Amino acid sequence: MLGFPPILQNAIDQMAKLPGVGKRTALRYILSLSNWKQDQVLALSDALRDLIELKHCSECGLFAEKDVCEICQNTARSESRILCIVEQITDAMAIENSGRYQGLFHVLGGVLNPLAGIGPDELNLDQVSDRVARLKIQEIILAINPSVEGDATCAYIKQQLAQLENSSEIKISRIGFGVPMGGNLEYLDPLTISKALENKTNF
Amino acid sequence: MLGFPPILQNAIDQMAKLPGVGKRTALRYILSLSNWKQDQVLALSDALRDLIELKHCSECGLFAEKDVCEICQNTARSESRILCIVEQITDAMAIENSGRYQGLFHVLGGVLNPLAGIGPDELNLDQVSDRVARLKIQEIILAINPSVEGDATCAYIKQQLAQLENSSEIKISRIGFGVPMGGNLEYLDPLTISKALENKTNF
Repeated sequence: MLGFPPILQNAIDQMAKLPGVGKRTALRYILSLSNWKQDQVLALSDALRDLIELKHCSECGLFAEKDVCEICQNTARSESRILCIVEQITDAMAIENSGRYQGLFHVLGGVLNPLAGIGPDELNLDQVSDRVARLKIQEIILAINPSVEGDATCAYIKQQLAQLENSSEIKISRIGFGVPMGGNLEYLDPLTISKALENKTNF
Repeated sequence: MLGFPPILQNAIDQMAKLPGVGKRTALRYILSLSNWKQDQVLALSDALRDLIELKHCSECGLFAEKDVCEICQNTARSESRILCIVEQITDAMAIENSGRYQGLFHVLGGVLNPLAGIGPDELNLDQVSDRVARLKIQEIILAINPSVEGDATCAYIKQQLAQLENSSEIKISRIGFGVPMGGNLEYLDPLTISKALENKTNF
């Protein structure tokens, strides 16, 4: 049996740990890499090594260059007293890049999923109440994707916030669900259409 | 516009150089990596860095721990005077692992493809005649995949070998094409079926 040299096999095994990458895809990547020029391989290796320097904002969980990110440091934003709770950093980036949101963010790092072993301790969930109290948040927007797990996570957050002293003064809303812009009723799934009917607005 | 920090953007750009990996797939890999533990990220980075140490046999092009690989060093194999020419190292591994071949290998590193800028100089093509003469090869098996480029590469090799002094004594054959084992005529493409009819053998 002609196997791969240990160096190659190790690289394949490590590469196969990436999400959605199996042994065959990893082999394809590594065989391609084995034909790259030395400095190109080093550039990739170094770029990955540098990822350990990547910092997250200790407040909201977004990427940050210092301990606290620029959004959290922005007093105009903290004085808005609005907190938008998202699953992933990329969700916050999508909302930020829409240009329509001027409040603070809070990245959970996922949603509750007991079957996958993801409970409140695996997420930045319990920090929500702390931040809401400390930053005197008056409005919370739950920008969490619609799914069974997302719904459960929203319910959990609402329950946690109800334990705060001034809970009755905090407005909690969830981002609107319905027909996306450019969407076509003909091709939308029944669940989206029933949500869109539920969320109809005066015209 | 909330962009990625430079560290992350650089890692995405480097990752997107892998074959079949676009910016979105690279982003998915890198965001996953940014959640890995530090030693896991370093293990991947180091595994890729080690690839620059990977050696190829100076004779046949297979992976090697020393300058010349174990197959080329095996006198029983070099005395067989048979040379199997393949496109990729993985092709040679597939043949070796079938257990039915006991000769030497020669890895081209691809096939001639003028449109993609791959000419004889980009491949280990011109070394074929040298090795055939030096190792007194008597039989050549072209184990090159069936394709327009593969056919052209085989024709090129045959033409090169015809210039050798003892070319009339060298037997050149191409690996057999036809119905694969476990294959089903009903689902095979017409080209394979016509090749299988062409290559019919006495029974």
